[in-house]
Amino acid sequence: MPAPSQFISYIDSNVDSFIKRLGEAVAIPSISGNGAHRQDVFKMGSWLQNQLSALGVQTKSVDLGRHVMDGQDLPLPPAILGKIGNDPKKKTVLIYGHYDVQPAEKSDGWNTEPFSLVVEKETGLLIGRGSTDDKGPILGWLNVLEAHQKLGLELPVNLCFCFEGMEESGSEGLDELITSEAAKGKDGWFGGVDCVCISDNYWLNTRTPCVTYGLRGLAYFKLTVSGPARDLHSGVFGRTVHEPMTDLILLMSKLVAPDGTILVPGVDDMVSAASAEEKSIYDALDYDIKDVEEAAGARIAISSDKATVLMGRMRSPSLSLHGIEGAFYGAGAKTVIPASVSGKFSIRRTPEKVEPLVISYVQSEFAKLNSKNKLNIENLHGGKPWVSDYKHWNYEAAIKATEAVYKVKPDLTREGGSIPVTLTFAESLGVNVLLLPMGRGDDGAHSTNEKLDKSNFIEGTKLLGTYLYEVGAISA
Amino acid sequence: MPAPSQFISYIDSNVDSFIKRLGEAVAIPSISGNGAHRQDVFKMGSWLQNQLSALGVQTKSVDLGRHVMDGQDLPLPPAILGKIGNDPKKKTVLIYGHYDVQPAEKSDGWNTEPFSLVVEKETGLLIGRGSTDDKGPILGWLNVLEAHQKLGLELPVNLCFCFEGMEESGSEGLDELITSEAAKGKDGWFGGVDCVCISDNYWLNTRTPCVTYGLRGLAYFKLTVSGPARDLHSGVFGRTVHEPMTDLILLMSKLVAPDGTILVPGVDDMVSAASAEEKSIYDALDYDIKDVEEAAGARIAISSDKATVLMGRMRSPSLSLHGIEGAFYGAGAKTVIPASVSGKFSIRRTPEKVEPLVISYVQSEFAKLNSKNKLNIENLHGGKPWVSDYKHWNYEAAIKATEAVYKVKPDLTREGGSIPVTLTFAESLGVNVLLLPMGRGDDGAHSTNEKLDKSNFIEGTKLLGTYLYEVGAISA
Repeated sequence: MPAPSQFISYIDSNVDSFIKRLGEAVAIPSISGNGAHRQDVFKMGSWLQNQLSALGVQTKSVDLGRHVMDGQDLPLPPAILGKIGNDPKKKTVLIYGHYDVQPAEKSDGWNTEPFSLVVEKETGLLIGRGSTDDKGPILGWLNVLEAHQKLGLELPVNLCFCFEGMEESGSEGLDELITSEAAKGKDGWFGGVDCVCISDNYWLNTRTPCVTYGLRGLAYFKLTVSGPARDLHSGVFGRTVHEPMTDLILLMSKLVAPDGTILVPGVDDMVSAASAEEKSIYDALDYDIKDVEEAAGARIAISSDKATVLMGRMRSPSLSLHGIEGAFYGAGAKTVIPASVSGKFSIRRTPEKVEPLVISYVQSEFAKLNSKNKLNIENLHGGKPWVSDYKHWNYEAAIKATEAVYKVKPDLTREGGSIPVTLTFAESLGVNVLLLPMGRGDDGAHSTNEKLDKSNFIEGTKLLGTYLYEVGAISA
Repeated sequence: MPAPSQFISYIDSNVDSFIKRLGEAVAIPSISGNGAHRQDVFKMGSWLQNQLSALGVQTKSVDLGRHVMDGQDLPLPPAILGKIGNDPKKKTVLIYGHYDVQPAEKSDGWNTEPFSLVVEKETGLLIGRGSTDDKGPILGWLNVLEAHQKLGLELPVNLCFCFEGMEESGSEGLDELITSEAAKGKDGWFGGVDCVCISDNYWLNTRTPCVTYGLRGLAYFKLTVSGPARDLHSGVFGRTVHEPMTDLILLMSKLVAPDGTILVPGVDDMVSAASAEEKSIYDALDYDIKDVEEAAGARIAISSDKATVLMGRMRSPSLSLHGIEGAFYGAGAKTVIPASVSGKFSIRRTPEKVEPLVISYVQSEFAKLNSKNKLNIENLHGGKPWVSDYKHWNYEAAIKATEAVYKVKPDLTREGGSIPVTLTFAESLGVNVLLLPMGRGDDGAHSTNEKLDKSNFIEGTKLLGTYLYEVGAISA
């Protein structure tokens, strides 16, 4: 059942006002990872709650307590919950999104102010932090609600909303809320939910819409090597003491090879070989080595074989070295021997099982160094891997909606990133979870000059609305 | 010829006012390595020039032009030159010092505000950035001048001063000034100079004064590995592209072993074995493994053999890894794949000859990685190594002065750090250069909680004055 034509017309007729609302949302720098912006995250939560209320949604703001970040004791941003519709004959869809964003400063390399939405006339790009991750998709749902309210149309399903403000910083507090509400069964906030839809990932390329049935998960490690009681002058202490940086760099060099092979024994072996059926999915994907190279902006694909690169993204574990805390990081030439340095790296896929492998391997490699420095290993946070049943009616609805709006069959993908809440919903509610992305593979979430194509915002809004009608048709 | 007793008495009677003046100097945050503080460096230069003028020194401030630092076009701080005395029967001593300091912020781990001199009553420590490097020693000379002015005493030598404001940032502009003035012979600013005295290094330990006759020199390298056009999300791009951090960390791990052995072929071989005479100097030094471990604040000496550690500091090349520019360096858990990362490291000793060895080795190691990323190697700056004739009368004067003030024979040391101007003076003026330190081995120059012991400030002032009398006695 496609969406009614007046819904589609309303979306096409209100593009400018939808973009204006996205501009308002982007203008609030709701950076959850920087304590100085915590008030802005709260402000964004209130803004979102007000929007939902005005569109007829019954809302509540749920206090998630406090946490300590970088030594600062801070209040957690609230979960903004909402409900609209209560017809027992209709299916109930739970919508998740996050209203916080990654940090961004113009000096990072942005061409424009990151918190001022720029509409590029020639390219149709909507440029600004959060445009695609994840304010654009959230506003897609607001657009759908507005169309139904203004047109006096009944929604084809009951909707339940759960929006959080800490997704970019480990979703602190949310798991507890979901599991405790889920434990209340039909009396809990999520009582009666039949399926979940999350729009917080991206197409595989820049052309083909996709629906996503798997996430790699994440385990984030911090290796700290400490030696002297304070930073030392390399001229005075060089070659007289064990230098923490020397040890740390050696340890970090033992984690991953330039071709992506993970050197921690056992990690690469944890993923079984792809089945013939799964391989046929990769073969069918609209993808070329050029796509990853265009998205990365350089000819640096790890292989010239399409399947190898796709499996690298979708099913193989990956290990990335992110940086070092405590060492000299500025421009110029400081001759310091840092007293304590922490290497940060993350492993995607199988995060639950990798911790003991990482710890014992790093400890044994450190022992080989014969250093008098001290080593500490922490698993900072993680998101479990997740795979969904893509033959479920929830996926069928999303596939039909994509075909209706985009006139193509969507790619069926597994995603490299992690959205920890996905698995929490699946496990604690026991319902099917669908990832239905709005943006393209080159949107640059977490990067400079993050953008959402205007066409993705508008057609994506139609997609979300149409998806609800397809779910509604199933229950009819 | 010891200094007159009224000079010694004057120093002992004016401790508080000397410390007050040091406090004024420390309060000016003359950080040369941060463009935002460039005006403070100028302010410190003016302060110093005014002090010298008030003490009867004929001064001039020499413009050294402009330079570009971190993309900013900035005026270089001036050289503050001075002269007092013009008696052809006296020797002329050239005094060098620097009035700029290393960066410091309380958040780096200082217990007190770095630019507010704290006088610790119990310990006698004078704590603040620049207290020992190099404002304390410069103020030692001002104290000597003040005593002679106030007492109406004639100086035993002619003095020529050369103070710079860029020592912590490569001494830009100074070499050109020295060589061009030196080229003018006796008509140049340094005409008639018989020897040079620099007080800008430290005792080997916390007990025994030293005079220093050698410096290791420095070559500072920046290895840049670049790949994607912008930072990437590791969830989306992990194991699909060559990651610059993976390559850089591997390259950095091939430079130095945990025991300090330099892995760049040929570098360790460039230093000949120590002669029997030189070995006897190391044996005679008042030094214990405990000294380096106390100064470092941890039991991390690279060897339990005294000679190995001393040779590591004084004559072996050393390679220290300082940090990475461009990677994630903050607290927390950012999952970025940085687009371009630069590893910083320096090699002490033989810097002139190491560049081609480093470049060809790093390039060949990079080729082995089979990476599609790009490598760039820069030699950011360097200071040549220097060894002086420690049997020269300039050293004899310093040794006698030390014995007169401290009642012990000084250690004869070679220093790990670099003071690039040392070699420039030696080569362009053709006179003996002496390093006569004021501070102790645990002062923490370049580190947090930098300090100068009050006794070192006061006895050090006496030492500098007495040294001038010993030089004067030679010429008599």
